[in-house]
Amino acid sequence: MTHRIAILGASGYTGAELVRLIATHPSMRIVALSGDRKAGMAMAEVFPFLRHLDLPPLQKIDEIDFSGVDLAFCALPHATSQAVIAALPRDLKVVDLSADFRLRDPAEYEKWYGKPHAAPDLQTEAVYGLTEFYRDEIRAARLVAGTGCNAATGQYALRPLIAAGVIDLDDIVIDLKAGVSGAGRSLKENLLHAELSEGTHTYSAGGKHRHLGEFDQEFAKVAGRPVLVQFTPHLLPMNRGILATVYVKGDPATVHATLAAAYGAEPFLQVLPFGALPSTRDIRGSNFVHIGVTGDRMPGRAIVVAVLDNLCKGSSGQAIQNANIMLGEDEAAGLMLAPVFP
Amino acid sequence: MTHRIAILGASGYTGAELVRLIATHPSMRIVALSGDRKAGMAMAEVFPFLRHLDLPPLQKIDEIDFSGVDLAFCALPHATSQAVIAALPRDLKVVDLSADFRLRDPAEYEKWYGKPHAAPDLQTEAVYGLTEFYRDEIRAARLVAGTGCNAATGQYALRPLIAAGVIDLDDIVIDLKAGVSGAGRSLKENLLHAELSEGTHTYSAGGKHRHLGEFDQEFAKVAGRPVLVQFTPHLLPMNRGILATVYVKGDPATVHATLAAAYGAEPFLQVLPFGALPSTRDIRGSNFVHIGVTGDRMPGRAIVVAVLDNLCKGSSGQAIQNANIMLGEDEAAGLMLAPVFP
Amino acid sequence: MTHRIAILGASGYTGAELVRLIATHPSMRIVALSGDRKAGMAMAEVFPFLRHLDLPPLQKIDEIDFSGVDLAFCALPHATSQAVIAALPRDLKVVDLSADFRLRDPAEYEKWYGKPHAAPDLQTEAVYGLTEFYRDEIRAARLVAGTGCNAATGQYALRPLIAAGVIDLDDIVIDLKAGVSGAGRSLKENLLHAELSEGTHTYSAGGKHRHLGEFDQEFAKVAGRPVLVQFTPHLLPMNRGILATVYVKGDPATVHATLAAAYGAEPFLQVLPFGALPSTRDIRGSNFVHIGVTGDRMPGRAIVVAVLDNLCKGSSGQAIQNANIMLGEDEAAGLMLAPVFP
Amino acid sequence: MTHRIAILGASGYTGAELVRLIATHPSMRIVALSGDRKAGMAMAEVFPFLRHLDLPPLQKIDEIDFSGVDLAFCALPHATSQAVIAALPRDLKVVDLSADFRLRDPAEYEKWYGKPHAAPDLQTEAVYGLTEFYRDEIRAARLVAGTGCNAATGQYALRPLIAAGVIDLDDIVIDLKAGVSGAGRSLKENLLHAELSEGTHTYSAGGKHRHLGEFDQEFAKVAGRPVLVQFTPHLLPMNRGILATVYVKGDPATVHATLAAAYGAEPFLQVLPFGALPSTRDIRGSNFVHIGVTGDRMPGRAIVVAVLDNLCKGSSGQAIQNANIMLGEDEAAGLMLAPVFP
Repeated sequence: MTHRIAILGASGYTGAELVRLIATHPSMRIVALSGDRKAGMAMAEVFPFLRHLDLPPLQKIDEIDFSGVDLAFCALPHATSQAVIAALPRDLKVVDLSADFRLRDPAEYEKWYGKPHAAPDLQTEAVYGLTEFYRDEIRAARLVAGTGCNAATGQYALRPLIAAGVIDLDDIVIDLKAGVSGAGRSLKENLLHAELSEGTHTYSAGGKHRHLGEFDQEFAKVAGRPVLVQFTPHLLPMNRGILATVYVKGDPATVHATLAAAYGAEPFLQVLPFGALPSTRDIRGSNFVHIGVTGDRMPGRAIVVAVLDNLCKGSSGQAIQNANIMLGEDEAAGLMLAPVFP
Repeated sequence: MTHRIAILGASGYTGAELVRLIATHPSMRIVALSGDRKAGMAMAEVFPFLRHLDLPPLQKIDEIDFSGVDLAFCALPHATSQAVIAALPRDLKVVDLSADFRLRDPAEYEKWYGKPHAAPDLQTEAVYGLTEFYRDEIRAARLVAGTGCNAATGQYALRPLIAAGVIDLDDIVIDLKAGVSGAGRSLKENLLHAELSEGTHTYSAGGKHRHLGEFDQEFAKVAGRPVLVQFTPHLLPMNRGILATVYVKGDPATVHATLAAAYGAEPFLQVLPFGALPSTRDIRGSNFVHIGVTGDRMPGRAIVVAVLDNLCKGSSGQAIQNANIMLGEDEAAGLMLAPVFP
Repeated sequence: MTHRIAILGASGYTGAELVRLIATHPSMRIVALSGDRKAGMAMAEVFPFLRHLDLPPLQKIDEIDFSGVDLAFCALPHATSQAVIAALPRDLKVVDLSADFRLRDPAEYEKWYGKPHAAPDLQTEAVYGLTEFYRDEIRAARLVAGTGCNAATGQYALRPLIAAGVIDLDDIVIDLKAGVSGAGRSLKENLLHAELSEGTHTYSAGGKHRHLGEFDQEFAKVAGRPVLVQFTPHLLPMNRGILATVYVKGDPATVHATLAAAYGAEPFLQVLPFGALPSTRDIRGSNFVHIGVTGDRMPGRAIVVAVLDNLCKGSSGQAIQNANIMLGEDEAAGLMLAPVFP
Repeated sequence: MTHRIAILGASGYTGAELVRLIATHPSMRIVALSGDRKAGMAMAEVFPFLRHLDLPPLQKIDEIDFSGVDLAFCALPHATSQAVIAALPRDLKVVDLSADFRLRDPAEYEKWYGKPHAAPDLQTEAVYGLTEFYRDEIRAARLVAGTGCNAATGQYALRPLIAAGVIDLDDIVIDLKAGVSGAGRSLKENLLHAELSEGTHTYSAGGKHRHLGEFDQEFAKVAGRPVLVQFTPHLLPMNRGILATVYVKGDPATVHATLAAAYGAEPFLQVLPFGALPSTRDIRGSNFVHIGVTGDRMPGRAIVVAVLDNLCKGSSGQAIQNANIMLGEDEAAGLMLAPVFP
């Protein structure tokens, strides 16, 4: 059975990545694409790398006939998804890739995003889209909220450790290194090649990054008590990839065993042998997560390193994985593409 | 039907690219991998990006039982393929990715590669692997010689123009820009990141690059007379991709029309609208070739720009396309992966 | 003696490069900086890499008291310099880095820049700033027009050859590779890191790039007849540097000897031994030009490759070299900084 | 007065960086260069970016007449400096850039470098070259041991804090990001452009990196008790630059004030305003260190970020700064070159 797919916000990087992945998906077919400012253009004009595909032209959202759509991916900018999704047919399956429905608590949303939520009822309905931890809810969901890409990376490193109680919950540092495509196709001076290449710097340091809202929500849920982490992201001169170096207090061998046990059956989560640490280049362009654990010379301290591709497993790949579940397909359908190296 | 595949020389970039592509190929299964210096190692050690795959370990070539192999890809260094392939069973289908069997004339081989050919009989048997121009021969072939990646790029820009007689054959300049993976995984000072990033330079300039042997052989065959081109390659700080800027004397509209007509039915060769010129980023990781044509302000001069991914369409993708034909499969099987952007 | 310097347009890359170079110049002191949109800000905010310097704050141009200024560098965007310079005191020495005064003929200006020139009298007065070829005029000049960075690179490769009559004037191809800083700090999608890194493409191909106006003007002057060149620029994933590969018809040894003789006494123009070709990485951050010549396998064809740093010798370094001459200083003062490698 | 300088090991990156800096130094002149494997070659062949300089050819060390040398920089590989320096005239001033004389304790040396020290008497004599903290000793020294580039970065962030007792000494995490030139010009697979660009990974993680020996030695000296830090280096796709993100427990405002007070008079150490964090691109090619401090959302936790150029302030610039002191020159002579951006 072929599912008819709409992508709202197809002119950004996550939208394009959805098209890339669906291009070889065995049971999804794109029937509508929206891109408000670029409505009327062909995708091949906006993204020439997709020119070999037979795709519908970009439309305005209100021009789309959703009666012929089985599932919509919503890849719109943060804060604009709320109103758009609220206006969609209530029986349409939706996977949202924005930040709008990640936080269940309206107060938390307002705290991190600076204004009240426009669709608090949908906020309650939405299921948090970290697939491996919300499969059952996703299967039953109509609206799934994709996670932050940084938030996903940190959670893959930490959730089983928090759940198992094998680390100190009050002393967790996530030092994260992120490629530039996570910032989207927006025109900002600090995203120019001449500014960014051959250098690195922190951003949103000091407990200010919005993905902390997701860490707080999810880790409290897992631990049954508040868990505050330190989180410092850095921007790196690379296009794709996130590497999170997570400093925890706990026995390294137990930390490794806990992660290996938790993820042993997961198709996309690969725990390396103890002492081996991963590289972003080994998951580039793919839906895989590589996780490594090593000890420190100081007993009782462990370092967990997790890597994923922010556009794929951190965003559009995750979205398709969730959509596969919502549509009753094999969860890995269309997502087993090998990473691209070099 | 699943074809049993061996890859000889799997520890280099083209070997790894073969594995990447076969990973999602519908009718190929890897049954043997060789890597002499790394024999005994798992592919996941040599190329961690392939760790999610269930692959045979690296062996020495003479440890492989070829009776269970339908087709072997030979991705060994130049000059070593000759002896290896000569020693393989004579009924084994072989696609060679090295330079060893590209030149049909032993004298030309010796001229460009500096020593006599070790298997001149096989040299005669081998079919030149530029798929779109040798389909029938490839279908009947036992041994197909993959083309040089630069040579492929230049030929896609020029062959139909030479065949149609629409350009001056005595004044052709190919100025080529190549990513670094074309040089392989070899340890050379000028391939270090610190040497290569943030700069560019020519290499093998002045009529010395070995791919000129392929240009000479093929263009003479097409034209029915010798055709000498100027060819200057440049190394660029990027991993994948070749862009050839080809300066020809001929009517630009005719040049464009000739290429568009020649490639109209080809699944992987995309001719852009007149005046549009391609970018390497739009074919990265894929088997597609994008070709653009524009005129100059001086009448009667045209610029043809062709791009492809040196590891995929320029090497391993081409090899699989040829193997598909040799095995009776759909030529595009496993090769419709969309490019990876950004 | 210390010369008091103003920099108009100090918030762009060429303005910042002027500050960088003047920071260690023995006889220049910056007394005023303008940056209209960023007026009131400290340079350390706009360019943190300059934070160790004691610099005046950014002002609006009309706030600057030019009575205390000996020479002004004007690093404003194209088309805005005309009105600004026309309003400056008529006895103030000015080095303009924009395109506004490069073309002496108002009709040519309008042809290439699309509108009439606003200060045609100054256009006549301005001296073309390709230092090595206009020293005497620059010494006597009040207004010097910096050259285009691509135009400078091509002229260094070609002027002596055209002057000496050793090449065919009707068959010259300049295939140029340029780093991204040449496009300035402007917010354009194709200058984003995620778009630009790991790829290459042409721009303004087909006889459309504005620097052709400079080539036409200067080569006609040198040859005493019109000389039309083909010129195809490519954008490369590197920040600084231009490499021009120039295809000419002429005897390679004569071509090399002509350049070596013409530049033998020049402090910044280095002609490599015959057969050696230069790399942009070897002039990065410096005022040097490296030029190499090789022959082709076809007799009577030569390849000249010239490299320079677009921000330094191609723009701000050239400007200071010209200012040194205008101010009676040693031409090389402050400009002997070695390139930065790696 | 002009000091006559020899550089031993001039064919590596730190040797070349010494030449670059001395090229515009007001009172140093290079009289001898060694490069054993490249003896007999001109520096312009080994490093074409230095071709404008009039330099002595590379010699073997034992061919150098040290009677005409005032000071020697020794930029040889780790473990080879010991024997070389032991064989030099005992009255020759030496600045060593290797790791051989950084650790005062022979047992510590053997622990971190895996074999006994070959010149333990010199080891005792050598002064640790972190200029700002050893000025008096350096002034009196004959042999100064340059610090590790990572070790310097971490110490600039931490020494004043440890000395002032304003942070918890038992909970310090240094998460460090390093450019690739720190690994030198050595031919290793993981330093190839195709392996390194567009990705990141840790190295020597888990308390194994040799610069921990320096941290242990120096921090214990400052604190008067053992201080063990966690230290995880990451390799980044950039050529120059180190960024250390240091997690400490202490009052952020106090941390900032302590650093600002300690470094207020230092010419090269720039403490940014509270809350501002630095970027490696702002110190590239220079001898400056930028340091920023911010608080976390959790009270009592601060993040200190320090950046420097590993080849300059982290190695060759530091060496010249120390040599200036040893030779009685202005400490900053020849080192006020502005960073190169973009």
